[in-house]
Amino acid sequence: MVNEENNQTIPVVARELIAEIREFIALKAFHALARLLEDFHPADVAGLLEYLDEEERHLLLGLLDDESLGETMLHLPEEQRGEFLEELGPTRIAEIVEELDPDDATDVISELPPDIAESVLGRLQTVNRETTDEIRELLRYGEETAGGRMTTDYVAVEQDSSVAEAIEVIREAVSKNDIDVYVLYVVDSEEHLVGFVRLQDLVLFPSSAVVEEFMVGDVVAVTADQDQELVAQLMQRYDLIHVPVVDDENRLLGVVTFDDIAEIIEEEASEDILYLAGVTNDEESPTTPPLLSMRRRLPWLVMNLGTAFIASMVVAQFEGTIGKVTALAALMPIVAGMGGNAAVQSIVVMVRSIALGDLGSRGRSKAIVKEVTVGLLNGLVIGLLAGGIVWAMWGSFQLGTLIATAMLANLLIAGLVGTTIPLVLRKLKFDPALSSGPIATTFTDVCGFLTFLGLATLTLSWLLK
Amino acid sequence: MVNEENNQTIPVVARELIAEIREFIALKAFHALARLLEDFHPADVAGLLEYLDEEERHLLLGLLDDESLGETMLHLPEEQRGEFLEELGPTRIAEIVEELDPDDATDVISELPPDIAESVLGRLQTVNRETTDEIRELLRYGEETAGGRMTTDYVAVEQDSSVAEAIEVIREAVSKNDIDVYVLYVVDSEEHLVGFVRLQDLVLFPSSAVVEEFMVGDVVAVTADQDQELVAQLMQRYDLIHVPVVDDENRLLGVVTFDDIAEIIEEEASEDILYLAGVTNDEESPTTPPLLSMRRRLPWLVMNLGTAFIASMVVAQFEGTIGKVTALAALMPIVAGMGGNAAVQSIVVMVRSIALGDLGSRGRSKAIVKEVTVGLLNGLVIGLLAGGIVWAMWGSFQLGTLIATAMLANLLIAGLVGTTIPLVLRKLKFDPALSSGPIATTFTDVCGFLTFLGLATLTLSWLLK
Repeated sequence: MVNEENNQTIPVVARELIAEIREFIALKAFHALARLLEDFHPADVAGLLEYLDEEERHLLLGLLDDESLGETMLHLPEEQRGEFLEELGPTRIAEIVEELDPDDATDVISELPPDIAESVLGRLQTVNRETTDEIRELLRYGEETAGGRMTTDYVAVEQDSSVAEAIEVIREAVSKNDIDVYVLYVVDSEEHLVGFVRLQDLVLFPSSAVVEEFMVGDVVAVTADQDQELVAQLMQRYDLIHVPVVDDENRLLGVVTFDDIAEIIEEEASEDILYLAGVTNDEESPTTPPLLSMRRRLPWLVMNLGTAFIASMVVAQFEGTIGKVTALAALMPIVAGMGGNAAVQSIVVMVRSIALGDLGSRGRSKAIVKEVTVGLLNGLVIGLLAGGIVWAMWGSFQLGTLIATAMLANLLIAGLVGTTIPLVLRKLKFDPALSSGPIATTFTDVCGFLTFLGLATLTLSWLLK
Repeated sequence: MVNEENNQTIPVVARELIAEIREFIALKAFHALARLLEDFHPADVAGLLEYLDEEERHLLLGLLDDESLGETMLHLPEEQRGEFLEELGPTRIAEIVEELDPDDATDVISELPPDIAESVLGRLQTVNRETTDEIRELLRYGEETAGGRMTTDYVAVEQDSSVAEAIEVIREAVSKNDIDVYVLYVVDSEEHLVGFVRLQDLVLFPSSAVVEEFMVGDVVAVTADQDQELVAQLMQRYDLIHVPVVDDENRLLGVVTFDDIAEIIEEEASEDILYLAGVTNDEESPTTPPLLSMRRRLPWLVMNLGTAFIASMVVAQFEGTIGKVTALAALMPIVAGMGGNAAVQSIVVMVRSIALGDLGSRGRSKAIVKEVTVGLLNGLVIGLLAGGIVWAMWGSFQLGTLIATAMLANLLIAGLVGTTIPLVLRKLKFDPALSSGPIATTFTDVCGFLTFLGLATLTLSWLLK
């Protein structure tokens, strides 16, 4: 949502800028263009590239220095970044990657084909041994773990350091890497994490004070192999700006910072959306190879096929009735389908409130009563509307009454199954987002066909009047 | 997702703790219990309350001091917070609210019924005029605006201040409100925002340096009435830890901090999920009054009813064929439904990658080709499977061949419409999450019925063999 709206608002601003850039290019005023780009944030340069053609894009990227180029690349969609890197050789990639933070460099390298990644690391090693070792270290962790998310650009001091010594350490780190420091970690002589100091305390305490005396000792940390979701949970739950990452012996390895949490939360929310639709792999994207996509989506479709056959068995029981009143065949999918739509509305409200932790234990039965009430109300309105349309178009009051009754019954059932199924799945320790949809629509299909065709069979002589 | 997993992991840890708490209660060791709770983060106390009964909950809350009570309340689900506050009078609420940050206090007060809110503010005014004025000010802004999100607990200095003076200002602010300071804002003599200083620079520059000389002058700010979504976009795009909020004349009013972004992103992602399911109001929750929920969901259901009738018109054209082969009535919903399922899979992959900004302009046609290929592959497998089942169960090779062919065609169409509809909606400046679903399933219903029943009509004599 966030970036989507973004894409819509940029063009208005970007249009003039793009015209300006094209003018510079036409005039071959490359030096002036380079100066213009210097004032831009890399995220904005990346945004502009979207609206330029192949040739202009290359020209513009050629004008950036290695650091801006690297940062701009980070803000490109993954697919474009891949294409762009493909064209550069390993030597150029190594030069650009060297200018990035170690965690960003690692992300870029992990996206490269293995042979190219290795040859980039080989070149990098000859110019910057230390960074290469850090990257190799970070590459060992899974992409969605704390280790995969952390940066090694943090500042730590030993516990017996004075404020003055701590400030010197910060000065060195800032002058070396130009990083933003919000927190100073405190370790013992064997690198074990023992606490952290907020920068404001360094300002407020005298320069002779020892950090151990005023540090925060009660520090929330995770191990490198823990899931990124846990890191996001901790940050959200305790409003943390940082979560340090340690090894099994509590030695400080790196830190996950506040800017990662947005990305993690967005990934997890996407997972919910994909799961609800039966795409059970959160890596799925428009660039996934078709065969892989097929394999991932097929199990879900096969499951749906099974439930669809269950519903069709119900219809098959009433083939005799349908043979006599063929209009029933045209109308029955309406009853079944509307039940499914209403059930999915109830499901997303439940799944969302479970995900946000808004639904307390006492809220559950209330939620069921509420959704069934909504089902009753919507069932009345939609039932009357559908009945009226059928009466008007098929010219049969009886058929109208039939569909109205079946619709009311099915929307009531939709409210009930749409609330209870996510709750039952959660109780059984399944992700409620994962299978609520097809289970609920099987119910509403079966119930829709059963009430509609069942009532039709019972009232057949009246229907045929 | 995040909190949902949380709810699942807590009980294991909490079980022992709850047993321990109950033991304290049984022994009436309230003093010891209060000491135990002091060591807990308010978020954890709120989590524990979930698992206690009414009486225990009251007892526990009674043991907390006003500040812990306020913070704990903030971490309760909204519904429980409401119930809990209802039981306290305005005087107690005022005492608790006074201990909160102004933005949190405002959130709590804005959730109260208007008459109670006014009487809480009345009591608060008699003890803390300044905070009351701040809260009244914040209450003026919409809940989802920058003004509604910002806190007024920030630290600012005038541009000609020295480092030593700035440190004094921080010292006062910290001793008064015990806040975390990450950034120091710089204003001119009329409170206009002119820049900010990172705390690390205060540490690194000599105490006689003037902040104006080393401040960051290029500051991203928003006005109080701008949407929270914009704030989240800016924070994500530029990796900001804070976004200052100014009035129309660039005077500093407050600041939105990093801990708000997680909440904003989660709200926006929920919006996408709800929109995809046709719940077009992001405030919808299990506690929304049924009549309001009905009014919000009805338009979508009416729209779906309209599209369902379109599909049923198609079926009605083939009533003659259905009258002759009634098994078609039982099987046609399978073809239509599977197309809808496959289309929704394509839609969520597209909507998600649009939302995350992953889909560049060049990726669009590639995405369409890819999804159609997936449709072809899944269509082959699902078609053969469905055909085999029908052959085996209905004993008709012809009927099996018919459903296999129609299924293949419909899954191909699903891949095509599932990708193009979100792209077209975005092009037309609609939210692709909002109506992709019903538009696509109308297509797949119509195409499913049309191919299945159309082919049946064309091959009727063969089918009846």
